[in-house]
Order: sequence, then C-alpha cells, then structure tokens
Amino acid sequence: MLAEIRGLNEECGVFGIWGHPDAAKITYYGLHSLQHRGQEGAGIVVTNGESLYGIRGEGLLTEVFNEGKLENLQGYSAIGHVRYATAGGGGIENVQPLLFHSQTGSMALAHNGNLVNANGLKHQLEAQGSIFQTSSDTEVFAHLIKRSGYISLSDKMKNALTMVKGAYAFLLMTETELMVALDPNGLRPLSIGRVGDAYCVASETCAFDIIGAKFVRDVMPGELLTINDNGLHSEPFTLSTNSAICTMEYVYFSRPDSNIHGINVHTARKNMGKRLAAEALIEADVVTGVPDSSISAAIGYAEAAGIPYEMGLIKNRYVGRTFIQPSQSLREQGVKMKLSAVRKVVEGKRVVMVDDSIVRGTTSRRIVSMLKEAGATEVHVCISSPPMKNPCFYGIDTSTHEELIASTHSVEEIRELIGADSLTFLSVEGMLEAIGRPKMNESCGQCLACFTGKYPTEIYPDTVLPHEKELVR
Amino acid sequence: MLAEIRGLNEECGVFGIWGHPDAAKITYYGLHSLQHRGQEGAGIVVTNGESLYGIRGEGLLTEVFNEGKLENLQGYSAIGHVRYATAGGGGIENVQPLLFHSQTGSMALAHNGNLVNANGLKHQLEAQGSIFQTSSDTEVFAHLIKRSGYISLSDKMKNALTMVKGAYAFLLMTETELMVALDPNGLRPLSIGRVGDAYCVASETCAFDIIGAKFVRDVMPGELLTINDNGLHSEPFTLSTNSAICTMEYVYFSRPDSNIHGINVHTARKNMGKRLAAEALIEADVVTGVPDSSISAAIGYAEAAGIPYEMGLIKNRYVGRTFIQPSQSLREQGVKMKLSAVRKVVEGKRVVMVDDSIVRGTTSRRIVSMLKEAGATEVHVCISSPPMKNPCFYGIDTSTHEELIASTHSVEEIRELIGADSLTFLSVEGMLEAIGRPKMNESCGQCLACFTGKYPTEIYPDTVLPHEKELVR
Amino acid sequence: MLAEIRGLNEECGVFGIWGHPDAAKITYYGLHSLQHRGQEGAGIVVTNGESLYGIRGEGLLTEVFNEGKLENLQGYSAIGHVRYATAGGGGIENVQPLLFHSQTGSMALAHNGNLVNANGLKHQLEAQGSIFQTSSDTEVFAHLIKRSGYISLSDKMKNALTMVKGAYAFLLMTETELMVALDPNGLRPLSIGRVGDAYCVASETCAFDIIGAKFVRDVMPGELLTINDNGLHSEPFTLSTNSAICTMEYVYFSRPDSNIHGINVHTARKNMGKRLAAEALIEADVVTGVPDSSISAAIGYAEAAGIPYEMGLIKNRYVGRTFIQPSQSLREQGVKMKLSAVRKVVEGKRVVMVDDSIVRGTTSRRIVSMLKEAGATEVHVCISSPPMKNPCFYGIDTSTHEELIASTHSVEEIRELIGADSLTFLSVEGMLEAIGRPKMNESCGQCLACFTGKYPTEIYPDTVLPHEKELVR
Amino acid sequence: MLAEIRGLNEECGVFGIWGHPDAAKITYYGLHSLQHRGQEGAGIVVTNGESLYGIRGEGLLTEVFNEGKLENLQGYSAIGHVRYATAGGGGIENVQPLLFHSQTGSMALAHNGNLVNANGLKHQLEAQGSIFQTSSDTEVFAHLIKRSGYISLSDKMKNALTMVKGAYAFLLMTETELMVALDPNGLRPLSIGRVGDAYCVASETCAFDIIGAKFVRDVMPGELLTINDNGLHSEPFTLSTNSAICTMEYVYFSRPDSNIHGINVHTARKNMGKRLAAEALIEADVVTGVPDSSISAAIGYAEAAGIPYEMGLIKNRYVGRTFIQPSQSLREQGVKMKLSAVRKVVEGKRVVMVDDSIVRGTTSRRIVSMLKEAGATEVHVCISSPPMKNPCFYGIDTSTHEELIASTHSVEEIRELIGADSLTFLSVEGMLEAIGRPKMNESCGQCLACFTGKYPTEIYPDTVLPHEKELVR
Repeated sequence: MLAEIRGLNEECGVFGIWGHPDAAKITYYGLHSLQHRGQEGAGIVVTNGESLYGIRGEGLLTEVFNEGKLENLQGYSAIGHVRYATAGGGGIENVQPLLFHSQTGSMALAHNGNLVNANGLKHQLEAQGSIFQTSSDTEVFAHLIKRSGYISLSDKMKNALTMVKGAYAFLLMTETELMVALDPNGLRPLSIGRVGDAYCVASETCAFDIIGAKFVRDVMPGELLTINDNGLHSEPFTLSTNSAICTMEYVYFSRPDSNIHGINVHTARKNMGKRLAAEALIEADVVTGVPDSSISAAIGYAEAAGIPYEMGLIKNRYVGRTFIQPSQSLREQGVKMKLSAVRKVVEGKRVVMVDDSIVRGTTSRRIVSMLKEAGATEVHVCISSPPMKNPCFYGIDTSTHEELIASTHSVEEIRELIGADSLTFLSVEGMLEAIGRPKMNESCGQCLACFTGKYPTEIYPDTVLPHEKELVR
Repeated sequence: MLAEIRGLNEECGVFGIWGHPDAAKITYYGLHSLQHRGQEGAGIVVTNGESLYGIRGEGLLTEVFNEGKLENLQGYSAIGHVRYATAGGGGIENVQPLLFHSQTGSMALAHNGNLVNANGLKHQLEAQGSIFQTSSDTEVFAHLIKRSGYISLSDKMKNALTMVKGAYAFLLMTETELMVALDPNGLRPLSIGRVGDAYCVASETCAFDIIGAKFVRDVMPGELLTINDNGLHSEPFTLSTNSAICTMEYVYFSRPDSNIHGINVHTARKNMGKRLAAEALIEADVVTGVPDSSISAAIGYAEAAGIPYEMGLIKNRYVGRTFIQPSQSLREQGVKMKLSAVRKVVEGKRVVMVDDSIVRGTTSRRIVSMLKEAGATEVHVCISSPPMKNPCFYGIDTSTHEELIASTHSVEEIRELIGADSLTFLSVEGMLEAIGRPKMNESCGQCLACFTGKYPTEIYPDTVLPHEKELVR
Repeated sequence: MLAEIRGLNEECGVFGIWGHPDAAKITYYGLHSLQHRGQEGAGIVVTNGESLYGIRGEGLLTEVFNEGKLENLQGYSAIGHVRYATAGGGGIENVQPLLFHSQTGSMALAHNGNLVNANGLKHQLEAQGSIFQTSSDTEVFAHLIKRSGYISLSDKMKNALTMVKGAYAFLLMTETELMVALDPNGLRPLSIGRVGDAYCVASETCAFDIIGAKFVRDVMPGELLTINDNGLHSEPFTLSTNSAICTMEYVYFSRPDSNIHGINVHTARKNMGKRLAAEALIEADVVTGVPDSSISAAIGYAEAAGIPYEMGLIKNRYVGRTFIQPSQSLREQGVKMKLSAVRKVVEGKRVVMVDDSIVRGTTSRRIVSMLKEAGATEVHVCISSPPMKNPCFYGIDTSTHEELIASTHSVEEIRELIGADSLTFLSVEGMLEAIGRPKMNESCGQCLACFTGKYPTEIYPDTVLPHEKELVR
Repeated sequence: MLAEIRGLNEECGVFGIWGHPDAAKITYYGLHSLQHRGQEGAGIVVTNGESLYGIRGEGLLTEVFNEGKLENLQGYSAIGHVRYATAGGGGIENVQPLLFHSQTGSMALAHNGNLVNANGLKHQLEAQGSIFQTSSDTEVFAHLIKRSGYISLSDKMKNALTMVKGAYAFLLMTETELMVALDPNGLRPLSIGRVGDAYCVASETCAFDIIGAKFVRDVMPGELLTINDNGLHSEPFTLSTNSAICTMEYVYFSRPDSNIHGINVHTARKNMGKRLAAEALIEADVVTGVPDSSISAAIGYAEAAGIPYEMGLIKNRYVGRTFIQPSQSLREQGVKMKLSAVRKVVEGKRVVMVDDSIVRGTTSRRIVSMLKEAGATEVHVCISSPPMKNPCFYGIDTSTHEELIASTHSVEEIRELIGADSLTFLSVEGMLEAIGRPKMNESCGQCLACFTGKYPTEIYPDTVLPHEKELVR
C-alpha cells in the first residue's frame, strides 16, 4: 500500500471449508473476496484425508496462484489466509497457513488477530526447548497445542486456548478435521456458511456470497467448532465470554456487503453518516466522501443533511505495487497518486468531506489541501467515528500513542493541523446507535478500546503491537 | 476484461508533452490516469532532439514499464498511448505509438479513433507499393504523410488530413516538434494543458490533474497544433467543421473527474440520473447503481426521486487478468465474479437499478437475476441513455447491428429478456439536456449516431468496425 | 552476453517447414538447436493456409514461448528466427519474422545476413514513399517485393533479388508457399531437410538432427526454392554465382555437430588444431582450450603435438542475462565471472592455450593473466585462424578496423599486449586445408574477407556494419 | 531437470563467510559456482551483528536474487545454500538456510548431507514437544541445539553433534559467529578459504577461485570450526573419526576445477579414463564422452588407448526448466532433447562411449541407440566407475536397490539391455588408484558404500533415503 494513504491496516482474513470436491478453488474465491483484509501474502493448504499440502507466497492471491498451482491442490478440505504485513518485510516464512509435520500427522494453522501475551508464552516455550521460525503468534499457538499433554486434538486445542489471551480467530486443519476457535470477546468477525453439504467459515460474510454459500450463523465468542465428515460440532471452550467485536470493522475494515452480527456494514456506515449530520449539521453546498471506505457514510450524511452528494474526490484505480511512485521533485511539481479532487465539482463550493477516521492526520491534511487547491471555498471535515486515542493490541496496525494525533492533540488543534474550516467527530454514542447498539456500557457488545482506552482483555507491559514484531526481528 | 461484463470498449487514450525534463515520467503518470481507456497495451516514445526512442508492450502500463525502463527513456518530449484490443489478440505490433525511421529523421504516431475510409486508402496505398505491418489505421496515416509531395511536415500533415475521414485524435512527434490533429467533427475528446513552461495534450482532462498541469483549452474540431521549442501554434486544416463529440464519452467512457467541453462528466451523469427520474418516476424503496460507471447517475436519480441511494451492488476489486475464472460447474454452483448483490440492502425491497447502457443485454440479465436472488421483490432497470441501436464506426467496440439488442428488440421485449419489472431508457432530449446541450439538431454538438443512426461523417460499404480488424487479419 | 567475453557475434538463425501438422513445435525445436546464433529475440509465424499468425519476443526462445503460446500457433507451415542484437537495444520491432499484411494476403519474412547496399535501397524506396518501422534489412527486402511490377510472387521475389547485394538467407512465407533464397555467394549456411513428407530449411544441419529430419542437401548460391503443397521447386535467380561461404562459420559460429557443405564443423576445427601444431609445434606440458568453441581445435592440437589435453579453463554454466555482474571493486578483488583457470592443472606447467580467434585482444589478455595467476609458468597462445584484420559486412558483428587488434598491431605487438609467451596464428592455407579446401584462390569456395580483405561482393562507402545500425537509430 | 537424463542428484552446496563488507555478494558468487550441486532452491542469510535477515526462493540462484534483493542483504557475514529437491515438490519451506528466532537471538542453519538417524531423533523430539515445519534434517539439528542444556553455543553444538549420525556439513550462523561442523567420516567435501581478512567455507574449492579467495585447507572429519571477529578457532567434537569421503564426488558430482583433499577432480577423472583403458583396451576408431561430466574420463581413455577423442555427442545448451518438452508423439518422430549424436563423427565408426556411471540404465540405452542411428557400427560403453549396487544414505538421490540396475543385473545383462557391443566398468581398485588412494581397505579414506555395500556409519531400519522424504509428506 502507498505510504501516503496508509493509516489503519487490518491483519488478515481467513477462510476454511470441509468436504467439498473443489475445496481449493472455493477457498481461492473466498479469499479473493477477503483480499481487502491483506494484500501482502496468501496461502492455501488442502487435505485429501491422507496428507496436507500447501502453497504460499508473497503478494496478491492472483500473484501467488495460477491455474496450474490451484489444480495441484487436490483435496476435499482446505484452509486459506490472506495476510497484511508491514512494509519492512515479513518474508515468506510468515505467510500463512503455517504447516507442521509430525510422525503422527500434519496440522495447518491460520490466524486472524493478535495475542497480547505472546511474548510471555514465547519465553515459557523457549525455556522448554521450542524454537521459532516465524515472528507470528500463530507459531506460538502451534507449540502450545503440540505440548499439551492431552490425547485428543480437541482437548489439546481447548488446553492451548486456556493459555492465549487477546484477539484470535484460529482455523486449524488436520487430515481428519477442521477446528475453529474464536476468542472469548469475539474481537474478530468470523462466520459459518454452508455450500451444498459442506460447511465453511470466513472472516466476512461477503465470502459466502461470492461462492454461493448460505450464511448459517456467526461464530460465538469462546466457541470451539469441530467440522469433519460427521458434520459440525460446537462447544464452548470457556464460560467467561463477553462479546466485544472490533468497532473499526464496521467503521473501516469490512467490506460494505458483509454483515457482522446481523448488521450490514454499508448500512451501519450510512447510519453513521446520518447520525453525524444529526450531531453537527454543517451549512455547505456539497458532500463528498473519501473513496472507497467513506462513500457510504458520505451518502448518509448528504441524505440526512439534504445537501447533494457529489464525487468530489476520485481514486486512481490501477495504482498497485508495480506503480512507479513519483519522486519528491515530481510530487512537489504537483504529480498526484491515488486521489484526485474534481475541480468542477468543488470549485467555489463549501465542501463537507466525510472520512471514516483520522490516524496520523497526514492524509487528511493532504486531502483538505487538494480540495482547496481545486477551488473549494470551505472544507468541513466530518469523521464518521470518534477520535482514535489509543493503540490497538488486537490485530490492527494503529501505531503507538505518539503517532495517534488524537492522543496528543485536541480536536481544535487537529483541525488547525489539517487545515480544515471545521472538524467534527461522531460521538461514541452516535456510532453505537448507528450500528444498532444503543447502550454504551460494558455490555454494548463492541470493543471501543481505541476510542475509550477500555480494553476488553488484560494488557501486559510486554504486549507487542503488530507492527513492532517486524522491528524485533 | 471479463467476458461477463464486457460490452462497450473504448479504443485508446493518448498523451503528449513537449519540453519537460521529465517528459517520459510525466507521460507515464498522464497515461496512468487514462488507463481506463485501454488496458491491453501501452507505449511511450521520447525524443531528446536528436533521435526517437520508445518502449511498448502488451498489458497494463504498470506491467509494461518499470523504474529502469522509464529511466532509460531520457528526453524532454514524449508521446504515449494506452490501447484497447479485442480478446483474440492484437499482438505487440499493434501497440502504439508506432515508430517510423527514415534517412531524414524519425516520426512517432499515436492515434485515438477510427478512420472510416481506411480500407479504401489502404487499397490505394498498396497499389502504390506501401506495405503494412499492423492492422491499425495509424499506419495508413503514416503512409499518407510520407507520400505527400509537400516539403514541410506541417504541409505533409495537412495534406494527409485531407484524405482521412472518420474519428481521430492524432499525436505525431519528430525530433523537433509535436503535431496534434483532431477530426473536423471533434468526435474524440482532446485537451491542451500546461505544466510549467511545457504544453501537453491528453484525451481527458483528468490527466492534467494527476500531473499538476493547468487546463488551457480543448482542441477544436479540424484544428492542427504544432508544439515545439517556440511554443504552441494553431491553425485549422479544414474550414468545414461540425462539432459532434461522442456522447458515450459523457455516458460511459470518460472518468467522472474529467471535463469535456467544459462540462464535468460526473455532473453530466448525475443530471442524466435526475432527468431519468423526471421522465419516469418509479415507486421504489432503494436506488442502486452498477459500479463504477453508473454510480453518478444512480445518485442523481435517488436525489431527484427522493428515494434513498444504497450500495446494492458491489464490485470485487482485484479481479484482473490474472484472476482464475471459475469453471462452468463452479459458476452454476453460484460462484460469482466481478459483482455481488448486497442481500441486506435489497432483501424485501423494490429496487431501482440504474445502469448507463444496454449493449447485448446479457450483463443486465445477470444483474437483475442476482438482485432477485438476493431478495429484491421488484427490480426496475433505468438506463441513463437512450436505446443503442446502431453500431459505432468511430472507435468504440459496439459490435454489429445484430448484436445490439435494442436494434432488434422493442423496449418491452428487452425488459422481458432481462427479467426486469420495468425498463426505462432516458430520452435523447433528456440526455442532451443533462449534458447541457438543449437542442437536438444537427448543431447540438454531440454525435448521437449510435442512438439515432445519423452519422456525422460519410460511411462506406467497406467501413470496418474496430473489432472486425482483428478478424481480417 | 557478457561484455567481458563478447567478441564475435553472429546475426541470426532461421528455420522453416512446410506441410507438417506440428509445424510450430517443430520450428520451436529447430530454432532451439540454433539458439547459439542469437539469444536476443525469437519469433515464429505459422500459416494454416488462410492467414498468418505469429508470436515474437525479446530474449531466449524459452523466454518468449511457453506451452500455451505454442499451442495457439496452429498451422501446418511455419518459419522462425532467432536474433542477435547489440546490447544498446534493438527493441521488439526488430525481432523477426516480420509480418506484413495486405488486402491480397499476408507475408512473413525472416533473414540471416546483411545487405551491403541497404542504405542505397532505402534512399530509393523512401523517395518513392516507403516508410520503415525497423532498422533491419529485412524490411527493405519486403518493400522491394511489394513494389515489384510482376504478378506472381516468384517473379516479384526474383525481381527483388536482382536489387539486393551482400549476404542473405531469406525465408518468405505466405498462406500458400514458402520461398527460400540464398545470395549468389552463399555467404551464410542454409540447408534443406525432410521430416516425413515435409520439407524444412535451416541455417545449420544440427536443427535436422534435433527434429529427426533427414538432410537432403545444402541450398546453392543464387538458388530460389519454392516449397508448397506440390513439393519443392528449385530455380536459379542468377547465373553469376561464386561460392564463398563464411569461413568463420567453421572457425567459431556453427555448432560442432553441424555439417556445412558436407564438412563436419567439429572435424574441421580439430583439423585446424592439428594443422596449427604442424605449423608451430610448441614445447609445452599441457594443451587447453577456451570453452566452448575452441575445445575441438585444442584436442586436435594436443593429439598432433603429443601433448596431453587438459581442462585448464572451465566455464561457469548458469551465467546468463539474469546473473548479477560483479562491480568493479569486486572484480579487482578477484571475483571471476564466466571462466576460471584450474590451478591444479596448470600450476607449474607450460601451457598451450588454444583459442579460435582474437578480436580486440581483451579477452585473451584476461585469460592469459588468469592462467598465470593460477601458476602457469608459460602461456603460449595458439589461434586456430589467421589474424582478423578486416571488418565483416555480411552479418557478423566484428566492429571496425580500429577495434580489430590485428588490423593495427603486429603479431609480436599483440603477443606483448596479451602477455603471452608466444602467439601463433594459423595460416590461411592451413585453415583452408583443415576445412578441406586446399586451394587459396578466388574459387576456394570460402569467404576470407576478414583475413585477406578481399570481399566477394561490392562494398559501398555507405555500407553499414550491423552494429552501427542501432547507432543510426 | 529432465527426467530423461536424471540419474544421480546431489543434495546441496553450502557457502559461508565471516567479516567481509560484501558478504552477501561474495556468497552469491560463491553459490553460483556451486549451482551444479542444486538447482531447485537457493537462499542467503546475512548478519550485521545485530540481527539476521535472509531471502530464499525456489529455482536457480539467478531466479531467486536480483540486484535489489542482494542490495537489501546488508551485513558483514553470510551463509548460503543451493538445494536439490525431487520433482514432486519440496516447497519453499524446505529451501535453506533455515532461520530461527528466539528472545535471545537468531540462528541460521544450512546443511549438506543426510542424517541416518533423523527419524529416530524426530520421534524423541516430538515426544518432548517439538514441532516441525519442514521435512529436512536441518530442522532436527536446530531442535537439538535449542534443547541442549549447555550455555555456550559452542557447547550446545558439540552436544547436538553427539546425537546425529550420517553425513553432514553444517553451517550455523548467529549474530556473533559462524560455526562449521563436518561429520566424523567427512562424507561431504568442505573447505576453508580466505579472502582478504575474512575466512570463508565452501562445499567445493571452485567457489574460492571464483571469488578470488585463497584455499586454506579442507575441514577435517569430526572438526568444529568457530569463525568470529577474533578469527578462526578449531576443535574436534569427536575423537573417533574415520575419513570416508564420497567417491562419487570425484566420479560425478564435483566440478572438474575443484580439488578435494588436494586432488583435482578433472585429473582424477582423466586418470579413471586412463586406468579404464589399461583395464580393458577396446579396438575402436573413436572415443567419445557423454557431456559434460564424462569428458575428462573420455579424454584420458583416448590418450591412454591411442584412439582419437572426438565430439561424438553434443549437449543442447539452453535446455532448462522453461524448455517445452516434446510430446510422446513428437519424440517417436525423432525429436531429441538434451543430447545429439554427431553423425559425421560416428558414422561407420567403432565408438568407445565413456560415461561416469549407470544408475537405471535408461539413459545409456538411449545414448547407445542414438549413436547407432547416427551410423556407429559398434558402440562400446566404458564406465569410469564400478557397478553401483547399493543405495546411498548420505545425501545422494540414488533410488532404492530395485531401481539400481547393477543391483539386480549382471554386467552382461546390462550390456544387453542397453544394446551395447561391450560394456566395461572400472574396477574399485582402479578407481581408487586413479584418485590416488591405492589401498582398498577401511582406511582408504573414501566411502565406497554404493559400490561395495560397506557403509561407514550405522544404518537403521528407518533410515530414510533423501527422495523418500517427500513421499512421507
């Protein structure tokens, strides 16, 4: 992704299916609809009941797989993963699913989330002789399973789950079953679908639509699923659950056509826009959204405010890894990259620019300045979420406190820094109401940590932010 | 592009600049913003005043060029081209700019459009000994220039321009100048910009925004521009001009942030949507547009109709050439490709689906059926342009009469075929008004041939449709 | 190729076949055995009797073609080409076969050689309106054919052949026939083979062995062959022929397993080595050859001299275009590239180092120094051809007079420059005898121009050396 | 590799260097000269004293690395690996060096060889909780090191070395040192070199020549080297050593310019050829060798027998992974692949064909038949090593007993199967004498297991052949 517009980055999407003759292909299409959750690496592991075999690689799914490679992945069950990694590297060894071989069978593991006690667990495991080839939490979990004294895989897994803390959606596949576990807070989204006789699981429901699967239900916090040739078996691995799904999934990460806990993401976003208009009605001529993630909120704002929605900003499709970035001198000369302002739409107008969040403020500053250069007389920035003041320890790459502009600056200071004529954030209450969770308390069902600082799990002095892992290496 | 959604295809975009130290790079970024006009091939030719040197290749701009290749294109002037080609091939030899060498100097030529008398000219030229290495009109024009008895390049070019008929935006570059010609009807868009001291030309104004250039003016029909170290010189090459710019540029082809003849494309589209609502107000619950090109019109329709605009259809980004297409059996099982319907948005709703045009009807049928499967109770299809009944001879790949569903079927028959509950087309008058051209007569300034059958130029029995050229080979 | 060891470079190999169901594949394997004649570009054009279709690309044959591309080239006749090009460029447009389309049919043309009057012909053709898209002679010949007033292709071709001078082996294919022409001196090798019922032609007979074809005979100087569904028809296009095949084909270019005019190349080279020993018997401990082209001569020398042949120099396989060249500082530190001396073999020994030719002397100097560093007490350089004093105008990239060290220095001066203890060249008579052409006069059947300066054709003031063409661009 | 000519395959080459500013580049060139030892994967890990960073990939070194990637590997020490893998896969996870991270530092490990007790060790380690991500022995060794109770790395390594049996040349690098261990029999070659102030180690001495390093000495069986900023420190890790270097390194694997235990490989091979002539002098007209590995022996045979050495077989360069293999029907029609017989050289001749070994006999049969088709009246096959009757457990991919033709057939039976007029194998004594090891007893210093069945180490019922590992997966 381009540094210019990078701000928030999700850590991965997962997909799994058990008992389908086209398991690898179905997984390919499923992962494809989850590509927005990670573009740095992709992998699929299949099983034919006798062994596990996989292909992984760096880059987009379409770069890692081709017809021939997919044909080679014969089997009737599969799990897959798309991965986000910080620019500095990552390397092929961190691309999932990880595959472990032993004399008694193999095991593939894919993970979406972040374990807050990974560091402590690693110390323990290393003291017992474990060695690590990756910098991912996933490997820690594999070691815990392996080291469990229990006999059955289900018991081993439950045992291991008692030791990990944080956010996780684990998919574990052996020659005979697919196990799925979601953390007790259900921090990451994970849903169950059915295509023909086969069960599948995915980080987002949009994966079911693309493969023609029917949505069955969401995986519950603290639930352990076992899917095998006998069907789907569910049991809780803990009794202490407290639903707290990541609110940023609604605000920014998930695809608009996905539904999380029964709530459509596009609808939630549109409602955020409407609610924002209700909280702070700006007098303006046009409303515009920052593509792609803020379009829904902008339309909602426009509808509620009775101000026309216009395409005041346009995204340059085709910008990807292979795009040649303009040098500094060319940028100074005015060469744009990912976004352009549409002069005819904003010239001489008072513009409401709706965006979903402000992380470091640099992107907002660029866009405001772009709109003003294009002739906007006023630019009012409306953010469809509250100020983000606290780092996330659950799998989202939001830097540290120092880098979060709202952590160190008042709203007025931020407004001045980004050069806007006004700056409005949606209230936490407004956001929850837009999602359909009216009560703002412990049991609202949402994780609000990045806004409120109230983390649903313990946090430790050595809890590692995702983006710091790479530095450790 | 995917067969499923292919319908209309533009034939190319051009960009040129004279007198800038970063000529090749500026051309790269300019072409990048024109990538939607052609994804099958790209090329850039530069000159340093002493010779011409170029690189061309099949695929996207980012696939053809890398940092190293671009570095090698040293020079202070350049022209570039992005090309659309029918699936069957094309081949590297048809990728432009074409480069011709002679003892007295070299010449590079890039072309957007289609000559209606190319076949006749070829017969003449071959009889005189010309040989052809490509199947493009561009080569015909090069021969005409070479064979002109005139001495100066400007006279040669004017001479050649007297012989070609049809739609064309030519960019011709030698070691000492850049010449630009637009056909007497100005069928293709072409604009002049200025970046620093350098003049540039581009198929669309969005190219100027991306490179930080200022819009100067549109090239006029029948105008011949000469740009060299002395600046820009303009002269008419014919006195019989009759502006008739392609209306589909507003409806479908151009980028929403481009302005054609001073009219913003997004605004024109939004107006088409509004006007469509005025002409046929449907009672419905939601309005949705087919991404990406119909979003503006859908928003206009929603605004005028007072019905909420919703994201009822979502496009799967990341689908490209390297995406593995689902097999027939997987498709039957429900595997989608480029578009998904958003169930939560359309379920139980009466949906107005706005699209820009219907070519063969197959795509519309698929989308209607997708919406109904997702639970829409009614699907009303509103097309923001009139029925397309006649083939285009000016550079757009709209098949023959037989393939144009509106050429052989009534609106009611089409409605039935695509399975819609109602089908509305915008009137020609409404479309013109939306663009801001109220009068529908010879001098409305727009080419309406595909709707009305009135072609602004002569058409010959052997006039070749763009997509037929490949077959001829 | 690596600059370090570049010296002589052939200009291309050609292959053609008429009437075989696997025409493209056969051509692929045939060209593969000719890959040593050109590694910069490759192309194949096929015909199914109705049209011509081709694929060309830069790089090795295996880089240009894959299974899928080859499958697409369906047809029962084909011609192909492998191309050498100077480092500076070339570009895809110069890769052959060139393909020309006209209303009455298409024509593909592949060429091995160099026309000495190409420049003059170009002037004439341009004056008549011809335009050129490549810098190759091949295009000139296509224009001559097209412009011929004759009706039949055979007459057109004979007419065009009266106008070109120099070295050429032309393969021309239309939908209905394959025509083959060899210049009146037969400067380039060209042979006829038969595989099943199909006739084929190739630059070297090794192509026949690889495809399981039987050698029929060599094409004769001044012969025009027409191969079509009626078989092979031969006729002379000129009565003034004077066989003068390039002697360097025996010395350096051709593959050891090819036979030229009935003489095996390996055998000729071994004889050159023997004869060299007869002319100048050196007292030494070991004989070594510079791989790969000088091994045969070295073995012959060793056999005749009664000195053991040893592998004193070894070539680093796997060095190709993608090998990362050591920087200057690494080279100074001793990092080698393509060749290594085998210390154990040469240490403390008096070494006879046999090489086929000296062009600029730089390679020889490097090898001598490498052998001495590896402990050779004496290095005696024996060259299995006479001093090369004159540039070649017939398709071999031997620089200008100034660059040919033997043109400006005496043998003793060269010896000193390359640091050898002695330096011996084979005499012209010895070389001819080794080939089996005992008489050194006009009718020896060999071109000796680079050694003697007696060119078998006219040479003009504006005759262009192959490597200069690129500069002209 | 091509199935047709595959027979014996080495398992890897290693290179390491400590204390050189261009460590990664030097390693690149060193590995390049070892590319013949493994073409399926390559990797380099560097350290700058603070962390370890590496790049690995499938394919040739030149496919895995480019200028940019190599630039990224900044550091002053490095180890690298080239890997052979059976066709069926391997996968990126098996490409070395393996890299292990822990809270106290990282460790990279590269290995050439095969552990005969790997399976037993794995059982033990898994019981203690170890998990495995690769199918390589290397990972087993890493676990042993990690689990050692000792404090210093040197002690940990010595401890681990007491537990592994078989053939190994280990390179282990941390942030502060490079450790090197060779098995007590010294089954694999491994040498020490010096370039400037830096020490380097390599599987073959040819790597030193290419990088301009001086040969210091061979690593001794049972020796543990520690190389760090204080220089090189050596100590034995066992007192029970018994030199038994793989004899096939002389016969087939190593590069002719390498020296093993002071003996040049080319010279040893030439001596084998001479000795073969002494043991069985055939009356014939020409001697030819199978390129490339048998050329030295053939030259030796010719010299000793007084029969001319000729190039009767020629190898098609440029045949690689991307070469399109001829279909069965094309092969039957006579399309060749890697080797061709030179008709002019062998026609009507009695040919001695020297090859280094016979594994399954299929290749020999093809070559004999090729020579006869090319007109050889007699083909006498002379093998420069004894019959290979026993599988190798030390890192060479020689199939099982059943597949080794000499294990199940007499020499006369083999002769008949391959269609030769006579078949001669070199005697074990002759081979040893050629290498310069006159005594054939326990202390001859060579491993002769594949010829004699006397394995220098224990072998266990579950000892896994290298090529079987993939099947296990």
